[in-house]
Amino acid sequence: DPAKGSSPDELASLTVAAVLRQDDGSLKPTGTSHALGDVRLLPPVLPSKIVAFGRNYAEHAAELGNEVPDVPVTFLKPSTSVVGPGDPVPYPSFSSEVHHEAELAVVIGRVCRDVPVERVPEVILGYTCANDLTARDAQRAEKQWARAKGFDGACPLGPWIENELDPADLAVTCTVNGEVRQSGRTSQMIRSVAEQIAFVSQAMTLLPGDVILTGTPAGVGPVQVGDEVAVTIEGIGTLTNRMVKRD
Amino acid sequence: DPAKGSSPDELASLTVAAVLRQDDGSLKPTGTSHALGDVRLLPPVLPSKIVAFGRNYAEHAAELGNEVPDVPVTFLKPSTSVVGPGDPVPYPSFSSEVHHEAELAVVIGRVCRDVPVERVPEVILGYTCANDLTARDAQRAEKQWARAKGFDGACPLGPWIENELDPADLAVTCTVNGEVRQSGRTSQMIRSVAEQIAFVSQAMTLLPGDVILTGTPAGVGPVQVGDEVAVTIEGIGTLTNRMVKRD
Repeated sequence: DPAKGSSPDELASLTVAAVLRQDDGSLKPTGTSHALGDVRLLPPVLPSKIVAFGRNYAEHAAELGNEVPDVPVTFLKPSTSVVGPGDPVPYPSFSSEVHHEAELAVVIGRVCRDVPVERVPEVILGYTCANDLTARDAQRAEKQWARAKGFDGACPLGPWIENELDPADLAVTCTVNGEVRQSGRTSQMIRSVAEQIAFVSQAMTLLPGDVILTGTPAGVGPVQVGDEVAVTIEGIGTLTNRMVKRD
Repeated sequence: DPAKGSSPDELASLTVAAVLRQDDGSLKPTGTSHALGDVRLLPPVLPSKIVAFGRNYAEHAAELGNEVPDVPVTFLKPSTSVVGPGDPVPYPSFSSEVHHEAELAVVIGRVCRDVPVERVPEVILGYTCANDLTARDAQRAEKQWARAKGFDGACPLGPWIENELDPADLAVTCTVNGEVRQSGRTSQMIRSVAEQIAFVSQAMTLLPGDVILTGTPAGVGPVQVGDEVAVTIEGIGTLTNRMVKRD
C-alpha cells in the first residue's frame, strides 16, 4: 500500500519487490527489490472492455454546456487505447483539441452480470487512476465517440491497482506541467461506483480485468504535445503521461 | 468455399471436414467429415474490438429520420456481445424494442494503422455476416450507445469467414421467421469497406481478428422472443439466431 498520502519525497523512497509466480498461483518474493524510479511499470491491467460514464459530475456536465442525463451516458473505449504509467501518448492526427479527463477507474475481479448495488463490492478487484483523454473537436463533430475517446493512447491507466480502498470520498486531481487543472472529489459523483457497475452489468457480462471509468470532475481542458499530464487520486497514487508527436 | 449461391438444398448437403493443427501451424485433414447440420459452429472470430459504422446506407438513415452524417458515425461493441451461428440471443431486460440490423462484417488479418484506402485489401482476412442487434428504445434514450448496441448477444457473427470475396456489390438480406425484412446491396454503402477501414485506422491500431461492421440497409424492425432472425450475404452464407427469454 505504497501511495496513501504519498508526497514526492515519499514516492522517491518507494521500492518495488520482485516476485515469482509459483505453480500453485501464489507469489513468492525473490528477495530482490528496486527503487520505483528504476522500473518501468506496465499498465496494471489489460481489460477486455472499458465502459465509461459521461457527465457523472454535475459541474463538469455544466462546463461543457450539457445537462445531467436522466439515464447514464455510457460509452466504450477499446483495449488498444490503454497505455501504462509513464508511457508517451501520441497526439492523434485527426484532432487539434485533446482534453484531459482525470477519473477513478474500477477494476472488475470476477465474471458477473445483473449485480445488485449492495453486492457490487464483491465483484471489484480494486481501483486505479485513469485519464479519459478526449479529442473534443471530434467529439463535437461525431455523434458517437469511438474515435474521439478511442484513439491509441486515449486511456492511460495506473500506476497500480489499490485493493483496499473506500471509493466514496477521494480527492481526484489533474495537473498539466505541474499546474492544477481539475480538482474534485468522488463524493460529487451523480451516480456512485456501485450504482454504475449495477447499471452496466444489467446489459453486459463483466469479465475479470474489465475497467469502469466513473466520470471526470470539472476543469477539463486542452493538452499540447510536450505537456506532462498527471492524474492523482487520494489513496492510490499518481499516473503521469507525456503527450508526444505521433509518428 | 461452401456457400456461394447456396440454396437450402445445397446447404443440407454440405460437409465440414475435421482438421488438426500441426506443430508448424499448418492444418492437416483427419479424414473425418460431418454434415453441416450435425456440428455446432462457434463464432468464427473472437475480436478484441468491434468498430461499427452507423448510417452508412442512405435509405436506412432516412427510415429512422436521420441525415447521412458528414463525418462517419462510429461506435464500439464489446467482445462480450459476440455469439456464434445458431446461438440463442437473450432478449435484454432493459429493452422492449430490439431491432435486427443485417450487416457485412470485415475481419482484420494483421496489425495495422493509418492504412491508405488503396492498401486496405492487404489487411483484410475475410468477410462474415453480422447482426448489429440494437435496443432501439435505449438508443433513443441514451446519448451514447454502449448499452443499446453492446448487450450480451448483441453481435451474432458467422457462419464462417469467406476469404475470397469482392465486397463491392453483394446482396444483404435479413429475414425474421422466414419473411424478408431487409434487402439491400453493399453497392449502396455511402462509404466503401476500404474507406471505412482507412478512416478507423487513422485513430486506432487494428489487430488480427478485429471486426468492422459496415452499416445496415433499410428495413430494420423489431424482433420478439421466439423469432428466428437470419442474415444472408451473397457469397458468404446465412447466420441464423433465435431470440430467447433472458434467464
